[in-house]
Amino acid sequence: MRTKFAVRTLDITAGVSVVILNEEEATENDIFAGDRLIVDNGGKQAVVTVDVSKTIVKRGEIVLFADVAEKIGAKQGDMLTLAQTGHPASIEFIKKKMDGGILQENEIDTIISELMENKLTDMELASFITSLYIRGLNTEETVALTKAIVNSGQTLDLGVHPVVDKHCTGGVAGNRTTMLIVPIVAAAGLYIPKTSSRSITSASGTADTMEVLANVDLTLEEMKRIVLKTHGCIAWGGGMNLASADDRLIKIRHPMRLDPKGVMVASVLAKKKAVGAEFVAIDIPVGRGAKITSMDLANELAREFVVISAKLGMKSEIFITYGRDPVGCGIGPALECRDVLEALQGRGPADLVQKSCKLAGAILEMGGKAESGRGYAIALQLLQNGKAYEKMKEIIEMQGGNPNVKPDDLPIGQYREQFYAQEDGRIHLVDNRAVNRIARAAGAPKSKGSGMILYVESGDKVKKGQLLFEIVSESETKLSFASELAKDINPIELEAVILGKMGETGVFEWKPETAR
Amino acid sequence: MRTKFAVRTLDITAGVSVVILNEEEATENDIFAGDRLIVDNGGKQAVVTVDVSKTIVKRGEIVLFADVAEKIGAKQGDMLTLAQTGHPASIEFIKKKMDGGILQENEIDTIISELMENKLTDMELASFITSLYIRGLNTEETVALTKAIVNSGQTLDLGVHPVVDKHCTGGVAGNRTTMLIVPIVAAAGLYIPKTSSRSITSASGTADTMEVLANVDLTLEEMKRIVLKTHGCIAWGGGMNLASADDRLIKIRHPMRLDPKGVMVASVLAKKKAVGAEFVAIDIPVGRGAKITSMDLANELAREFVVISAKLGMKSEIFITYGRDPVGCGIGPALECRDVLEALQGRGPADLVQKSCKLAGAILEMGGKAESGRGYAIALQLLQNGKAYEKMKEIIEMQGGNPNVKPDDLPIGQYREQFYAQEDGRIHLVDNRAVNRIARAAGAPKSKGSGMILYVESGDKVKKGQLLFEIVSESETKLSFASELAKDINPIELEAVILGKMGETGVFEWKPETAR
Repeated sequence: MRTKFAVRTLDITAGVSVVILNEEEATENDIFAGDRLIVDNGGKQAVVTVDVSKTIVKRGEIVLFADVAEKIGAKQGDMLTLAQTGHPASIEFIKKKMDGGILQENEIDTIISELMENKLTDMELASFITSLYIRGLNTEETVALTKAIVNSGQTLDLGVHPVVDKHCTGGVAGNRTTMLIVPIVAAAGLYIPKTSSRSITSASGTADTMEVLANVDLTLEEMKRIVLKTHGCIAWGGGMNLASADDRLIKIRHPMRLDPKGVMVASVLAKKKAVGAEFVAIDIPVGRGAKITSMDLANELAREFVVISAKLGMKSEIFITYGRDPVGCGIGPALECRDVLEALQGRGPADLVQKSCKLAGAILEMGGKAESGRGYAIALQLLQNGKAYEKMKEIIEMQGGNPNVKPDDLPIGQYREQFYAQEDGRIHLVDNRAVNRIARAAGAPKSKGSGMILYVESGDKVKKGQLLFEIVSESETKLSFASELAKDINPIELEAVILGKMGETGVFEWKPETAR
Repeated sequence: MRTKFAVRTLDITAGVSVVILNEEEATENDIFAGDRLIVDNGGKQAVVTVDVSKTIVKRGEIVLFADVAEKIGAKQGDMLTLAQTGHPASIEFIKKKMDGGILQENEIDTIISELMENKLTDMELASFITSLYIRGLNTEETVALTKAIVNSGQTLDLGVHPVVDKHCTGGVAGNRTTMLIVPIVAAAGLYIPKTSSRSITSASGTADTMEVLANVDLTLEEMKRIVLKTHGCIAWGGGMNLASADDRLIKIRHPMRLDPKGVMVASVLAKKKAVGAEFVAIDIPVGRGAKITSMDLANELAREFVVISAKLGMKSEIFITYGRDPVGCGIGPALECRDVLEALQGRGPADLVQKSCKLAGAILEMGGKAESGRGYAIALQLLQNGKAYEKMKEIIEMQGGNPNVKPDDLPIGQYREQFYAQEDGRIHLVDNRAVNRIARAAGAPKSKGSGMILYVESGDKVKKGQLLFEIVSESETKLSFASELAKDINPIELEAVILGKMGETGVFEWKPETAR
């Protein structure tokens, strides 16, 4: 059997590790499409899945997709060695979990290591996640999984104390508390090396929003230098190789919408542990449109966060918050930044300010910068006396942005459409999911200046013809898409007086907005 | 957003349905690697997964892998429409099963339909199979799954009675009973439209072995014509689109080695129901190296086969057989054919003849061609009086082979190595898995004349220097690979007199062959 093949590269980022062999030659060697082999480029190895082709690959040649070529540093014309791969040890442990067994620490370590070495297929990982969802993880398993995820990537050791962090389980539009909490607690003298994510399905992630003001794509070394100098930063977590296994697990969990509780807890806490956090505040918004919709699940999650944090040597406080409505007025990167900058100057949306100061206050108390019960007041004071704003300017400058940017300087889309109340009433709901969809249709988060402005919130009394919200876009076409969508999936519901009616059908017809 | 794209085809059979878009253009349209979209070529649709590339795809272009292009009949330069796909309805039902629910018939139908329409990803299917493995299927679910699999493909209606069939769960090397049972029961006047599989991991499948004598790649129409004329055939099932969903489920189950009981039962019985079988004999070999290794599982499976068959209007009899040793002497397509032709002429390995006649006898009794308790004797008689051989010649001729082929005419590899007993003793085990691996290393099943010849079986007393087995290959290189492997994983174990010894380590050391 031939074991050396000449590399031809193909510029396709396939997401999966695929190589292509000549079909005839592969068959002769008992290799078939879907088989898993090891490619070795002078010691740099990857586990790959085989594709075959009759014509595009000649005998003696191997075609590599871009991601595989990069992983093993292979260039056009290199000679690669191809070898059979053994059965990954993880399969047995995944099967054990499937059968209801309890996984030992070394078994979980093996699964995460083999995941990182690309030895497991997406199908095997899907099977693992499904098994964890059905069978659950006990405390020891969750702790072991968290540690394994921490060990799968780089870690940050600032060498100073106390290091604090915060997290939000997500789903609430406009919820940019991080951009107030970081400067508040940093101004108080705590260290907060905050990493945030970019949006996947929402109008903007904290990293997308912060990017309007500064560079968020930092290396771990840059983050360390900035935090040691200014006590805080707001960086994009995806580029830093912290808790790397988590990024791969998310690729499986996300498309299947599968979030086993223990995996969610391990995923969050591993990211905190990896940056050396000692005190952590976790925000769990609960309500329709938020990621967590049931109070029972929020309670269970909260308990797990507390217990597992303690086992990892961190102290966490968990806050279940009202997640049914968006926070702030602007939705979309630049519009959210405008709210944040206003708030840092003592103005800004009341809900955003209050929620951020509550969470920041809890962190100040845990970190020893406020007596019990005084955290909120101190946080609010740091916001009102301009110290948080000064701190934010330092952070923006250290991250390569313009510290003197004013809210009105931020480029906001020029194409706009306003929506008005059709009748008198009280606002029943501002729907997070609808708001996110409309803002995305308008171009957010890629188009920084696009999104929505909300002029009302739940409970407000409105008159017919009163302005409810405005869609903002940098593209005329996208504005018209978003406006059509807003007419279709009305994001703001008035409280219904008549809840339903029964006509000649004899069936009670609910008004669509209440039946949704 | 652009919705029309010009096709460029790429000759790669990716196994998964992937298209490649220009990265920049995709990003502008909020499409990312891994997203699922529908491509439409004038009404012919497929659900595809998106890849992106910076350079090989121009804006306005879409690159299709060979399998996708074929599926929707797209050619270079065609204009395709790209559309968002909704969330497949199956996801909710897969989640229901995950959560421990019982699936209704229409829910199972939806999953199998969406599977056939390529609307489900491999990850979603892996999650489904994992859920079925953990949660199990009740009788109604298994019946519904079987029916859905039958309906996913073509079916055979011979219009004659009685139609019979047989199945073996597999794993036993050389177990070519089908090639004796089919001519025996056909000679007795029953109709047996037998479809068999090719080998995946064993030395040979029945279809691989029959292919030495005749063409096995028949259409459903050809099979119908042959069976109506001769009462029997031995065809490859993979080319006929019978119970098609099963082939796709196997693609998921096989690499994960996941065989939920209900799915295994549905898979087997759907193939029988699809050819219109009324009476079915099922052989479950149990033992080390066989597919089913535990008697408990064999018992459970047997019960399910009986119950589910009845619900589908078939009568099944289940035989748990000794599966620890290979059957017959030859291992590999041509060598197994030699055993079969010898047996049809009243000679041949005793174990092969006996097992085949026991199973054929049961079918004769179910099908009304033998009184209760007389089936075995009649089957043996049909073999000994040459009627089964005459029938086999008819079948071979109808399937385009040479009916007059003699055992010695079959081309057997010229490269051979013999292996001898190292000491006196009694044969303890002939290891199915080792035998399969060695025969495959020698070239089977692709190389028809390669494999092994076994000269002893379990229980035989042997003298030092006595011939145990011989490796046969059509390639000198492969012979040497196979010989090395045979020395490494000795396929024939002598009964150990000393089971283990304790030395100065104070630990009892088991002899490797007994500890295996």
